[in-house]
Amino acid sequence: MSLSGKAAIVGIGTTAYGARGEFADRSLVSLISEALDEALADCGLSRTDIDGFSSYLGEPNDPSLLAPALGIPHVRYAGLVLGGGGGGCCAAVANAAAAVATGQARVVMVYKALTQPAGHRYGAAYSGVYSGDARSDFHRPFGLVSPGQGAAMIFRRHMHLYGTTTEHLAEIAIATREHARRNPRARMRKPMTVADHQASRMISDPFRLFDYCQENDGAAVVLVARAEDARALAKPPAFVLATAHGGDGRWSQGLTLQNAADDLYASGGHRPLARQMYEMAGIGPDSIDVALLYDHFTGLVMLQLEDYGFCGVGESGAFVASGALRWPDGRLPLNTHGGHLSEVYLLGMTHVIEGVRQMRGTSTAQVDGAKVALVTAGTSNVPSSALLLGSSA
Amino acid sequence: MSLSGKAAIVGIGTTAYGARGEFADRSLVSLISEALDEALADCGLSRTDIDGFSSYLGEPNDPSLLAPALGIPHVRYAGLVLGGGGGGCCAAVANAAAAVATGQARVVMVYKALTQPAGHRYGAAYSGVYSGDARSDFHRPFGLVSPGQGAAMIFRRHMHLYGTTTEHLAEIAIATREHARRNPRARMRKPMTVADHQASRMISDPFRLFDYCQENDGAAVVLVARAEDARALAKPPAFVLATAHGGDGRWSQGLTLQNAADDLYASGGHRPLARQMYEMAGIGPDSIDVALLYDHFTGLVMLQLEDYGFCGVGESGAFVASGALRWPDGRLPLNTHGGHLSEVYLLGMTHVIEGVRQMRGTSTAQVDGAKVALVTAGTSNVPSSALLLGSSA
Repeated sequence: MSLSGKAAIVGIGTTAYGARGEFADRSLVSLISEALDEALADCGLSRTDIDGFSSYLGEPNDPSLLAPALGIPHVRYAGLVLGGGGGGCCAAVANAAAAVATGQARVVMVYKALTQPAGHRYGAAYSGVYSGDARSDFHRPFGLVSPGQGAAMIFRRHMHLYGTTTEHLAEIAIATREHARRNPRARMRKPMTVADHQASRMISDPFRLFDYCQENDGAAVVLVARAEDARALAKPPAFVLATAHGGDGRWSQGLTLQNAADDLYASGGHRPLARQMYEMAGIGPDSIDVALLYDHFTGLVMLQLEDYGFCGVGESGAFVASGALRWPDGRLPLNTHGGHLSEVYLLGMTHVIEGVRQMRGTSTAQVDGAKVALVTAGTSNVPSSALLLGSSA
Repeated sequence: MSLSGKAAIVGIGTTAYGARGEFADRSLVSLISEALDEALADCGLSRTDIDGFSSYLGEPNDPSLLAPALGIPHVRYAGLVLGGGGGGCCAAVANAAAAVATGQARVVMVYKALTQPAGHRYGAAYSGVYSGDARSDFHRPFGLVSPGQGAAMIFRRHMHLYGTTTEHLAEIAIATREHARRNPRARMRKPMTVADHQASRMISDPFRLFDYCQENDGAAVVLVARAEDARALAKPPAFVLATAHGGDGRWSQGLTLQNAADDLYASGGHRPLARQMYEMAGIGPDSIDVALLYDHFTGLVMLQLEDYGFCGVGESGAFVASGALRWPDGRLPLNTHGGHLSEVYLLGMTHVIEGVRQMRGTSTAQVDGAKVALVTAGTSNVPSSALLLGSSA
């Protein structure tokens, strides 16, 4: 069987969006509980309907803690994405979809909570020169210690090969900010110009402050059920048309350092995922109405546009310069919620949620008549992951 | 759809079985690679056939490390069981089965490697009085610090309620040892008497040394494919007839401390899993020919015999005293490889492997005409997990 059309996202919820550290006095479980309440109210289900858990990125809040804390009486599925960092958010939805499609569970909650002071700060330099990890022990001693540095090197290669510029990066930041300005929940809503972008402080050349995403506190939950169960619920479901989860086995070093050949190196690493999803759903990039692309760094969004075939390899600069990402008139409105750059950073979960809103017709930058949304997870990880959501199955 | 009969275990492999610390100078990846070679030779597949990874217990060797190290060109699935400790080994097979059944991957390798000095020693007292984990901070300061202590309290309750004795525990250890004596790979093959058991040193009353499993170094791999692909391979597949993954949400505290009511507390926590699997496979305990039950501690094996309905609640003492677990004449030969107690401790993986051998007819304590094997993962965790394997789908 194929997973296509067998499962759907039926409920979505988040906490308020906090600044990094703002919810440091709250437990992650309380944040998950609050987001879950919003997701349940969204679709009319109750806690006792939930019988599965799905998360990613080494999520420490497992069912033995959550089930009694949240009042969930019986656990029938508990899956985590293996590896992949921020590349796991769509795979966590895929795992949930497979669990309900194969009858292992009825309603699986996909969740992620962050209070950054309580754990690892994702974008910071990794602490310690030697990590015990054979991969990073070869580059940390030389000062290559943060995800932003690795992404900057990848995008610098793209600039060298194809003439891409930092003005193209500005367009990603500005298009996203414009969308955020329409979204009352977004944290960054001040207008941004190209000059603002170019004047922001340099962090890791060529990436400036406005090329980096925010870091935030909060939690998000999406509820996944079988397609036939989904149709009976309060709001229109967003059907899972395709999932992809994995990547090229040659691309192995994580975001901080890649060692692949040019064709793979100067990409977002999503080409195999794109092929797999288009085959599963029986559609191509022309059928996609809105793109919710993982945006830890502006430059990696551009590489994903090429990976998914919205433009040719090396052509993402011209594509974004054409206004394609703007709402309402662009060919492919990007991150219509504001993304990590301007709405909030919850490790990709809000991209999934915005995909559901677009399929329901309830986004604050609604793409008229949108039928298919592409959602991606973090680039340059194996596994990474992605979803195609549809307004019908 | 149901998962029943849709997937099968097609290949099995392990490293040599080392004493705890014996392989400390080897990387986990090299151990996984060695076990994988045996599993591939077992079924005639090659590394390039593998496109998925499944593991459990916070497995640190993820696809970004393993794919290039093992020469696996493309990753399409990467799943980890969320929580559950040793309760995850069968769920890892279930995740692999769901991945291949839903077309996410073709051949998924389920793997686990241990070199205990390199990481957490599973059976030891947890280090530090305060862990930052709200659950254990309530009991560690009072000296309740190891899995064996928690399991001993659970079994002590069973003794109080039902008159179970430590001679019953001896029967678990001795039946298992007798099976190990027929298995040339088993590490513990010296004959054991009831007197030997009762004279072994007390560790956590009522559990003595011989009630505890071994700790070992090594790795194990099983390969999972779709049923239709499995039939074309070198050796008879072991079909996945049923999976269960989860548990009672009230049972939440992990192995070290349970806080549940008597009916749940003095059990192995597997009753919901038993119900789910019997329903999925359309069979009951009478159809099970051989039991491969997770044996970190003898007493928890007895509780599982009740959970799965081989005898009534409180009756496992009489059941084991009847000789039911012995080979070849017992009603339900137990851990015919020797189990964790006497063969090797690889976190349940060798129980899965022995289930495959029994379905192929190649065990060193082969149950004549065995058609269905029950395999369980660690008790008293949520999620725990279990499998029913069949010689036909």
